Amino acid sequence: MQELLEYLGAIQPKVNETLAAETGTLNTMVQPVATHVLSAGGKRLRPLLAILFARALGRGGDDIYPLACSVELLHSATLLHDDIIDDAALRRGLPAAHTLFGSTRTILAGDALLALANLIVSRYGDTRLTECIARAIIETATGEIAEIEYLRSTGHPQETYIEIIKGKTAWMIQASCQLGAIAAGATAQQEQAACDFGMNLGIAFQIVDDALDFSPSAGETGKPVAGDLREGKLTPPLHMYLERLEGADRQEFLHKFTTGTFSDADVDNVARAVRGQGLDKATRDLADTYLKKAADALHMLDESREKTVLRQTVDYVKNRSR
Amino acid sequence: MQELLEYLGAIQPKVNETLAAETGTLNTMVQPVATHVLSAGGKRLRPLLAILFARALGRGGDDIYPLACSVELLHSATLLHDDIIDDAALRRGLPAAHTLFGSTRTILAGDALLALANLIVSRYGDTRLTECIARAIIETATGEIAEIEYLRSTGHPQETYIEIIKGKTAWMIQASCQLGAIAAGATAQQEQAACDFGMNLGIAFQIVDDALDFSPSAGETGKPVAGDLREGKLTPPLHMYLERLEGADRQEFLHKFTTGTFSDADVDNVARAVRGQGLDKATRDLADTYLKKAADALHMLDESREKTVLRQTVDYVKNRSR
Repeated sequence: MQELLEYLGAIQPKVNETLAAETGTLNTMVQPVATHVLSAGGKRLRPLLAILFARALGRGGDDIYPLACSVELLHSATLLHDDIIDDAALRRGLPAAHTLFGSTRTILAGDALLALANLIVSRYGDTRLTECIARAIIETATGEIAEIEYLRSTGHPQETYIEIIKGKTAWMIQASCQLGAIAAGATAQQEQAACDFGMNLGIAFQIVDDALDFSPSAGETGKPVAGDLREGKLTPPLHMYLERLEGADRQEFLHKFTTGTFSDADVDNVARAVRGQGLDKATRDLADTYLKKAADALHMLDESREKTVLRQTVDYVKNRSR
Repeated sequence: MQELLEYLGAIQPKVNETLAAETGTLNTMVQPVATHVLSAGGKRLRPLLAILFARALGRGGDDIYPLACSVELLHSATLLHDDIIDDAALRRGLPAAHTLFGSTRTILAGDALLALANLIVSRYGDTRLTECIARAIIETATGEIAEIEYLRSTGHPQETYIEIIKGKTAWMIQASCQLGAIAAGATAQQEQAACDFGMNLGIAFQIVDDALDFSPSAGETGKPVAGDLREGKLTPPLHMYLERLEGADRQEFLHKFTTGTFSDADVDNVARAVRGQGLDKATRDLADTYLKKAADALHMLDESREKTVLRQTVDYVKNRSR
């Protein structure tokens, strides 16, 4: 992990400086909302991936930074819109933007950030880059809608869930990797490898998140334990739990899941049973199948410091505990 | 007006067909929202302007249609978000999308349409086109936020109002004209003329709208008469009306305007006074100053059928009565 931490430490100041400079070009009416959502932090995973692929494939120099930051701006835009949709009070421990600035400014600041990302990308003079992020925005919005359509639904197969998280999480991570590859003038095979890495890493990232939702320490992250159960999201641990249920227990679970009527005690019981049956561990095993594909995609790259860091990013997703 | 009507009649079927084909590529979860907002109609003014400038500057062929439709998709995306912001019940006489599909799908469908527009534009392989629409989206969102910041405010000069409507209305109309010019390989002077035409036409379009808000027939369009007064928008007729008020009348108006406490009788009285003092007419005179600039910008174009139609578009905005 040492190389990953060092690399992140080296790029983060410049990433944050670039984000501040780009959002500084926005009108002063929009800026405070953008500054708020960006200052809540985050690991800047998406810019990191863009920079890693650009460098691993031979593009040096600092002019990659705005391009790398465009995906963080897109991600921030989706956070602004999501928090309104979920009526979330907090985002990364801080008040969600719409509770401070109102829904109006927050929706419009999200639109402005989407457009700012497109504007930055257009400066690079290659419409394949624009196409890449436009596609990712469409897929992200579609995945989020699909997630909502399937809330409190239980009849769909696990593959449907994978399609949903490809949209809501993995496409934007894939786009981060692809942007870096395109900017480096990658071959078609190298670009495909960047896409495969990003898509599989993104799917695994979300599945690990779903496993962590049942971790006893989930409360420490500020989220309620088994929040997905309360919200009616049939994530892999719950899908597996439901598959093992029979008879009256199954009927009762189905009724409460589809009507959203679990008591706090019910939630505790399910969370305990999920852990007791090792389903959080089985969920991480499922994530590992995608992480293996991500790692395999790296074989297309020559050895480099960046390839080492990309491998460690896979390990980071595999092992993260919060 | 004959040439304008014929031209519109000739392009509208192909515009609608293109809009249907492009939104047909969206996931089935997003499509119904897009189809709903687009099927509510509208004159397709923005695609018309893009096509007119492309053709006037020498680009023939039908492959301009998707580009021309991208601005209609952007416009539709802003309508979806605006209706949520305003909590509007109706849009062009039909139920607003969010009342049918919920805020979540409507916000996300708006995001998908913004991205679809970018995706379409990126297919043309010229990042100046992407830059043009990205800039227009940012300016539109900023203008809408500014409009809200200045609601129930009275101390600002008329210039502030013009800046607001440049953002919320005129930038996207300017972008429509500019896209057509760029796609036709216009010279810098021709492109600037297209921008000048669009910006001034857009400003005038909004000012005429503000005058029509005080027309006795406003009720027939489904909007309440003097809706801007009720909402606390200091549009040109109200700005002029306030300038003429003195003493206790002025104090009372200022109080009710800033607190949003006009009674129905108050609104009727102000609307009658605005018309009685000829301020709706004076507002149209203000619009004419921008329409004159728009018409002047056309001098850069050689004579053509499209130039005739563009001239008639200026007349249409000047004379429209609803």
